[in-house]
Amino acid sequence: MTRNVIFEPYGITIAVEDGENLLRAALDAGVHVNASCGGQGVCGKCRVILEFGELETDPGENIGESDWNAGYRNACRSRVYSDVVVRIPPESLLDRRSILRRHPGIALRPSPIDFKAIKAAGLYSPAFEKRLVELTPPTLMNNLCDMSRLEAGLARRHGLDAVTLDFYLTRALSRALRENNFEVTATLDFSRRRYHFPHVLNVEGGDTTQRHLAFAVDIGTTTVWVQLIDIAAGEVLGHAADYNGQLTYGDDVITRIMYSQKEQGLKRLQEAVVATINRLMHQLLHKHAIPADEISHITMAANTTMTHLFYGIDPGSIRLSPYVPTVCNVPLVRARDLGLDVPPHVFINCVTSVSSYVGGDIVAGVLASGIYKDPRLTLYIDLGTNGEIVIGNEQWLACAACSAGPAFEGGGIKHGMRATVGAIEEVSVNPENYEPMIITIGMTKPKGLCGSGMINLMAALMESSLLEPNGRFRTDLNTPRLRMGEFGREYVVAYAEDNQIGQDITFSEADVDNLIRAKAAMFAGYVTLLESVGIEFGDIDQVILAGGFGNFINIENAVTIGILPDLPRERFQFVGNGSLQGATLMALARELLDQERRVAGMMTNFDLSEVPSYMSHYVAALFLPHTKAEFFPTVTERLRMQKP
Amino acid sequence: MTRNVIFEPYGITIAVEDGENLLRAALDAGVHVNASCGGQGVCGKCRVILEFGELETDPGENIGESDWNAGYRNACRSRVYSDVVVRIPPESLLDRRSILRRHPGIALRPSPIDFKAIKAAGLYSPAFEKRLVELTPPTLMNNLCDMSRLEAGLARRHGLDAVTLDFYLTRALSRALRENNFEVTATLDFSRRRYHFPHVLNVEGGDTTQRHLAFAVDIGTTTVWVQLIDIAAGEVLGHAADYNGQLTYGDDVITRIMYSQKEQGLKRLQEAVVATINRLMHQLLHKHAIPADEISHITMAANTTMTHLFYGIDPGSIRLSPYVPTVCNVPLVRARDLGLDVPPHVFINCVTSVSSYVGGDIVAGVLASGIYKDPRLTLYIDLGTNGEIVIGNEQWLACAACSAGPAFEGGGIKHGMRATVGAIEEVSVNPENYEPMIITIGMTKPKGLCGSGMINLMAALMESSLLEPNGRFRTDLNTPRLRMGEFGREYVVAYAEDNQIGQDITFSEADVDNLIRAKAAMFAGYVTLLESVGIEFGDIDQVILAGGFGNFINIENAVTIGILPDLPRERFQFVGNGSLQGATLMALARELLDQERRVAGMMTNFDLSEVPSYMSHYVAALFLPHTKAEFFPTVTERLRMQKP
Ligand code: FES
Ligand code: FES
Repeated sequence: MTRNVIFEPYGITIAVEDGENLLRAALDAGVHVNASCGGQGVCGKCRVILEFGELETDPGENIGESDWNAGYRNACRSRVYSDVVVRIPPESLLDRRSILRRHPGIALRPSPIDFKAIKAAGLYSPAFEKRLVELTPPTLMNNLCDMSRLEAGLARRHGLDAVTLDFYLTRALSRALRENNFEVTATLDFSRRRYHFPHVLNVEGGDTTQRHLAFAVDIGTTTVWVQLIDIAAGEVLGHAADYNGQLTYGDDVITRIMYSQKEQGLKRLQEAVVATINRLMHQLLHKHAIPADEISHITMAANTTMTHLFYGIDPGSIRLSPYVPTVCNVPLVRARDLGLDVPPHVFINCVTSVSSYVGGDIVAGVLASGIYKDPRLTLYIDLGTNGEIVIGNEQWLACAACSAGPAFEGGGIKHGMRATVGAIEEVSVNPENYEPMIITIGMTKPKGLCGSGMINLMAALMESSLLEPNGRFRTDLNTPRLRMGEFGREYVVAYAEDNQIGQDITFSEADVDNLIRAKAAMFAGYVTLLESVGIEFGDIDQVILAGGFGNFINIENAVTIGILPDLPRERFQFVGNGSLQGATLMALARELLDQERRVAGMMTNFDLSEVPSYMSHYVAALFLPHTKAEFFPTVTERLRMQKP
Repeated sequence: MTRNVIFEPYGITIAVEDGENLLRAALDAGVHVNASCGGQGVCGKCRVILEFGELETDPGENIGESDWNAGYRNACRSRVYSDVVVRIPPESLLDRRSILRRHPGIALRPSPIDFKAIKAAGLYSPAFEKRLVELTPPTLMNNLCDMSRLEAGLARRHGLDAVTLDFYLTRALSRALRENNFEVTATLDFSRRRYHFPHVLNVEGGDTTQRHLAFAVDIGTTTVWVQLIDIAAGEVLGHAADYNGQLTYGDDVITRIMYSQKEQGLKRLQEAVVATINRLMHQLLHKHAIPADEISHITMAANTTMTHLFYGIDPGSIRLSPYVPTVCNVPLVRARDLGLDVPPHVFINCVTSVSSYVGGDIVAGVLASGIYKDPRLTLYIDLGTNGEIVIGNEQWLACAACSAGPAFEGGGIKHGMRATVGAIEEVSVNPENYEPMIITIGMTKPKGLCGSGMINLMAALMESSLLEPNGRFRTDLNTPRLRMGEFGREYVVAYAEDNQIGQDITFSEADVDNLIRAKAAMFAGYVTLLESVGIEFGDIDQVILAGGFGNFINIENAVTIGILPDLPRERFQFVGNGSLQGATLMALARELLDQERRVAGMMTNFDLSEVPSYMSHYVAALFLPHTKAEFFPTVTERLRMQKP
């Protein structure tokens, strides 16, 4: 249910979901409210006056009784459960001009997989199916062995004239038949990934056709996601995520590869990620009270290095010129052989990688987003330490990886941190007094800046004219928020007294430089790749953003600082965790399982370090938003208009 | 090199191999020499006089100096290294008539697989091949992953446009390539048993095409044989055999099946036979200094129950009406998954069974002997507790199992024993004085009678008129060798003082009855099966004898007592251990690997217990050689002639 919130005196209305936090509503509406404690309700600055309707507000200690009776509330402690009118009190009132400068973020949310649409498109046809087989019990005159009887039953009842049978079902077959009056359910793999004929993986006694599940796994360098999928019902039952257990051995793929070259290193890394996956699978099975026997298969996607490490395959050559992986299309193997705690009939179906730095995670995203069969020209972007880019349509696909470095994930930024509780994620800066309005994850006192928070902060600093296009802070402003620090000039995002870390949280010119280099690497990637295939930005029909980071990014701000191209905003779309979604869809749609290797093969890989023009494109992008203003027409226009 | 031995005064000449034992030569020539200590040289009875040539004789203590100088020797202690003339001394001299009664055994020996013939027939084309692949090292411009590079190399150098690749080779690939200048050897499975395309099992660095081996395994209920095969050279390097470790849990298939139904029973039986195979494989690898990595695959044949137990598949239904096995054609599985101590690329290729009691061992024998592609009508007989019979030709094959019981293996016979050192294997009985001439395995003092010894003894007793056609001993003869015992009348084969067991070794009418029931079960099987397919004995072009027991059987004697049909002796042939030979040939000839399931499918199984006439054929065979004399024309004629 949606509720309307009207912010007075601006007369700005925003529709929000029932229960939305009022501070967040203000931010989304582009209404600045002072807020420096991240939304924990301790700084007391985010005062608003309730003029109409009901808010559910935690009183806290900041509003005295008379103020409360006069309608004063802390926005960060208030939730909207009716239409309301809220007034920004005079002490916070700014002129309307400054409000207009702020462009509301596009309220895109990661779209969960839309099963109705998948079914409607005829795509819902899992490669793994369960078939009930009612057999005639053997007699002296009809004494085929159990296995041939099963084959005959599959032929007669299901028209499956030729199947292959997995070894392990032979161990369960006799009992399953005899304890269930010769009625069993067979699990078949209809994909063409390995077996020429449909392959019977498992048999269970009685009719278990409605008990059919699978796991989809996304192994990120940092985070591992596991999704439990009900194949019989065609829905995701739940997911679980945790840090990749390999983090103990290094933060990024390069340090992991180096560790893998040590004695026992590869083994330890393999076991670490398998332990993480086992824990997550157990959690899900336990939570949904599902026996492991009902899992028929696992689909998996990961970047090339994570794929090698998961399978225990030496990734050493990935890091050494000419940067070739050992294997892009990993053959089928029993999950149990890798140490996964599932029955022996469960095989791993892994998404094919393209190259050392464009992995199965990207191919999975391409599959999930359907680019490979879409006539529209699409730019697919996965932001991260290795930002991957894909461009193309149903006819052709080109891809590349950019070494953006760790800045987007908080690396190399003094107060950077992962996107966990206490990370500043939303920021706006009051263009009159340069005070920030911040919201943290979990609305606790801030601890630092996560990737999306840094992007939002940098955009806010540009829009409030604090930050110049060359990445330097203004020196002509008289505000305590801007000062000289250890690493050049810096903006104080949260003073020590408003945060959890006992020192000011700042954002310095050195941090700005780091972020500019990261975004320049990405943008130079787009330009180089487009140039390589003879396309211009204007030709792009849609831009799809993926990656755990991509989910939370404010597109407007990302365009403002020049990470994303300045295209009409309606062309942007989030696919969420494209890797996990691709793995999940592969479990649900045979088409994807059958096509994935072909799609990976379609993707022509460009090694940007080998393209001579890449470096000049990179240097040209070391500017906010870019040295070539024509690349960023709307941003340039907006920034020009608000110049004081 | 052969030597001629002339036995005087009979003037009988026999050609023997250089080094042949003189007692054995006499036996083969049908010349009776008293010999009651089994050939150990202690009884001193086997005296002969050397008249010409040289014998290599261990002097022993039985021949005094003057006798030695006169040419006296113990036959059992003498070996033939030149042409010799030997005289049977007057004290042993019998009239010529009695000599003629004895029919020399057919000196058939198990034929080892004749690789020259196989190669000449174009059959030597192993399904598993090693191919050298010299790859171009990757560069920045040519940066295919290692696996795709290997695939491309196989396509370019060997015309293999589509292959599948085994998971485990991915773990070895990077190092194998980089440590060998991108020259590797790939092991491929070209069989069509499971994979549609040639399947690449393994890669090794450098050129290892000349280092390619396989194991062939025959799992008998009693004995396990392992053969080490050099695929590259096309020859058997050696074999090893041992008792099946499952013997602890029961002697025959029925007791094993019963044990398998107990808690942990199946697991224990599976591990027991795997331990036996592992031990034998290690022995062979160690003896021939071969690393396990050079084994590319294992072929295996066994009876249906042994097959189930080896794979850990429940055999329970085999023993219960309607006697169906769980599986006849076991899917491919990694040997390591069963506990075999070999690298993960090694799969087990098991010969398909026909039914619960006609197993892969028999199909292997049919494959090895080539019946399935021979226009001649062949009767294939595997003698044992479960005697299996196959009849047919390239057009059709029919088969059946007879429950002969354990008599042929010494079971239920008072002094029966397995064919090990001390078992009496050769026997003749002097028709004048009823004294036996015996040779034991290892020529030590006797311990008991093995299966072939019993057959030879029974035939000797028939030929010396001691045993009547109804299985009763004569009561009108005055000889201490024949007496009343605990189980009816009995013949003393070796007195206590001549043997190792401290009591007389006897053969009683109860023992005779057991042996008659066993041979009747077999013979009734032939008659019933022939009747079922409308064939008569005379139509049979060849008889092939298989089984460990079959190797050592004296065909003439087996015909005499009625185990084998009375056909012209040149139609008989030994195939030796047909099961092991079939498994070995499967490793060497792709044709067999590709055809084996089809051949098993060709074999129509007759359940004799369901054929009404079987019982009357059985009763008719409870006679020596048979109630219907017309079935045994030569035997009947011979026995009639020698009637005193
Ligand atoms: S009290 Fe609301 S943001 Fe600090
Ligand atoms: S001494 Fe030769 S058989 Fe006894």
